[in-house]
Amino acid sequence: MRILVLGGDGYLGWPTAMYLSQRGHEVGVVDNFIRRTWDHELGAESLVPIASLQERVAVWEAVTGKRIEIHIGDLNDYTFFEPVVRDFKPEAIVHYGEQRSAPYSMINRRHAVFTQVNNIAGTLNVAYAIADHVPDCHLVKLGTMGEYGTPNIDIEEGYITIEYKGRTDTLPYPKQPGSFYHLSKVHDSHNLMFCCKIWGLRATDLNQGVVYGVDTDEIKFDERLRTRFDYDGVFGTVLNRFLVQAVAGMPLTVYGKGGQTRGFLDIRDTLACVELAILNPPARGEFRVFNQFTEQFSVMDLALAVQETARECGLEVTINNLPNPRVESEQHYYNAINTSLLKLGLQPRYLNDTLLESVIHVVQQHKNRVNDTLILPGVNWRQTVNG
Amino acid sequence: MRILVLGGDGYLGWPTAMYLSQRGHEVGVVDNFIRRTWDHELGAESLVPIASLQERVAVWEAVTGKRIEIHIGDLNDYTFFEPVVRDFKPEAIVHYGEQRSAPYSMINRRHAVFTQVNNIAGTLNVAYAIADHVPDCHLVKLGTMGEYGTPNIDIEEGYITIEYKGRTDTLPYPKQPGSFYHLSKVHDSHNLMFCCKIWGLRATDLNQGVVYGVDTDEIKFDERLRTRFDYDGVFGTVLNRFLVQAVAGMPLTVYGKGGQTRGFLDIRDTLACVELAILNPPARGEFRVFNQFTEQFSVMDLALAVQETARECGLEVTINNLPNPRVESEQHYYNAINTSLLKLGLQPRYLNDTLLESVIHVVQQHKNRVNDTLILPGVNWRQTVNG
Repeated sequence: MRILVLGGDGYLGWPTAMYLSQRGHEVGVVDNFIRRTWDHELGAESLVPIASLQERVAVWEAVTGKRIEIHIGDLNDYTFFEPVVRDFKPEAIVHYGEQRSAPYSMINRRHAVFTQVNNIAGTLNVAYAIADHVPDCHLVKLGTMGEYGTPNIDIEEGYITIEYKGRTDTLPYPKQPGSFYHLSKVHDSHNLMFCCKIWGLRATDLNQGVVYGVDTDEIKFDERLRTRFDYDGVFGTVLNRFLVQAVAGMPLTVYGKGGQTRGFLDIRDTLACVELAILNPPARGEFRVFNQFTEQFSVMDLALAVQETARECGLEVTINNLPNPRVESEQHYYNAINTSLLKLGLQPRYLNDTLLESVIHVVQQHKNRVNDTLILPGVNWRQTVNG
Repeated sequence: MRILVLGGDGYLGWPTAMYLSQRGHEVGVVDNFIRRTWDHELGAESLVPIASLQERVAVWEAVTGKRIEIHIGDLNDYTFFEPVVRDFKPEAIVHYGEQRSAPYSMINRRHAVFTQVNNIAGTLNVAYAIADHVPDCHLVKLGTMGEYGTPNIDIEEGYITIEYKGRTDTLPYPKQPGSFYHLSKVHDSHNLMFCCKIWGLRATDLNQGVVYGVDTDEIKFDERLRTRFDYDGVFGTVLNRFLVQAVAGMPLTVYGKGGQTRGFLDIRDTLACVELAILNPPARGEFRVFNQFTEQFSVMDLALAVQETARECGLEVTINNLPNPRVESEQHYYNAINTSLLKLGLQPRYLNDTLLESVIHVVQQHKNRVNDTLILPGVNWRQTVNG
């Protein structure tokens, strides 16, 4: 299949591009390198050294004989993006091309506005390009489990059937996102549901949990194919950050009580889920939502798991409960449904010691690159700062 | 009270500014005149001639002795807007400052992106300015009943208590908006709910129905205080448009079957509702939602009412069912709750012959200004066009 991967230079985008290429699809990648620019802004960088996108695709071709097309530009520039879609004629588009950090969106007003405008307008451009040029194309859009917040009822996959005062309807699941970033994904979801309705587009919204891990089968072909690995307070997600803290001999920083429960998944399952969605497209006009995670953990569960595995690797690790920089419940009900992808055949790779140890080994190889001034949370949800 | 009216040069903004000024509040108006620019873009203009904002406030002062401050600029320009809020120190902000036409937002990609970016980023700037400078200020934000769509269950005021699988929670009411404009208001609602939660702002979201009417008590002081009256296919709302068609001797254009049911209210009730909200602010941290309409009608109900009243005025009027340019249900359940404003003391002015006749008389005075090429719908929801 002809597949365009938007944000194909990122943590998940690049492994997805290789995975789909390796499985025989014809893959094009779109990226504007803004993720690398944010590294400059924050004075941060991937713990694992990463090659340029141009080198990545060259190595990929040398190793596998398969070509990945690259298109450098911004989704928000329709004069760039429209011809890419028109000429590549994708049958599926995997859309990772958004600002994806909650803390980044909360730095100040400029970052909040940037995040929402970038994500919403970029995604509108994607929908218009499909409607204009490839209306049969299946849009596989990365959303987030964080769109739902932590309601006191079960979290269904995108829709909920409500019985109310003797009447019934199936409606979009109510959303309670917890940052301007998460809000941008909720806005995207509403916009895309509408585009499917009025233009007959087909889309799958993958409400993804927190991804962990550093290796995929394709990355193992060559060190120069490595994807980025973030551990800083802005872009580092919780489990990856804990593993770096463990190796660096720092306390694991749990925000508040650590009872915050979320869905999680292995990076390799992300790739499998994306391909399952592509191979099983929805009907024209359908806006389909899958909850894409394999297990639920509390933040404290993860800290304890990392502590134990680190100990088995000879690392003594303490846990430090920081004041929570976010506004969120620290003890709450959480039960999210995730059966759709399992029904399509997903074979989950559950979190285990072997995975944790393998990440620890990769982190240990690059321990000298850890910048410990970047790990503590520097962005506070409760106060605005100039900008 | 010190009250800033955003979009204070518009159809509702200007009458609101006068109404609040007349009732003893200290009023400032913010506007960037983009509504007048859209007239140039569309080759349209208000049926009723309107004065410049500068002339309006001069006449207002001459007639009443009361001053209304004006600030000319764009909410999206924070270097303009921040000092206005910082220096005016409003105790309440009434926010009409958005692109408010569904057809305008559906013209093409550029208009969709413009509408969402303008409305969302502008409203984020309003929230940040309040948080930065006047955190106690009450934001009274105009939303729309169109945020809800037409669910098969009763429409509550912003929130719904859901019993589900033996558990219960009160959650944001699920939204199914029907245009990129309506979507922008849903996005605003989610953003503002979050701002109230994290910063302790106080806001009232007025989910307003379709407004009709041309006169308010203050407008009657002087012809030069008139507010705009739109009847074109892009900015004209349904009842006002029907009244112009009746006077111009054109068939009333009902989209599709005309079973679309919506909430409606008199322009004078809009002003009363806004002041009731201001005088009864929510607590800090509360995001309060009122459904602001007084009656429900189907489009065909209104066409028949206009036809009958017109006949009494000696005008023979036919009704024409056009193919619906929108994607919407034309026969559906509709029952929306609107008790909150009634409880605060709203005395509704229900639609009656006297009101319809008085609008017909105003329209007749300006009949020679009707441009009948502008009335039929020119924007189609189902197809994208270049732009």
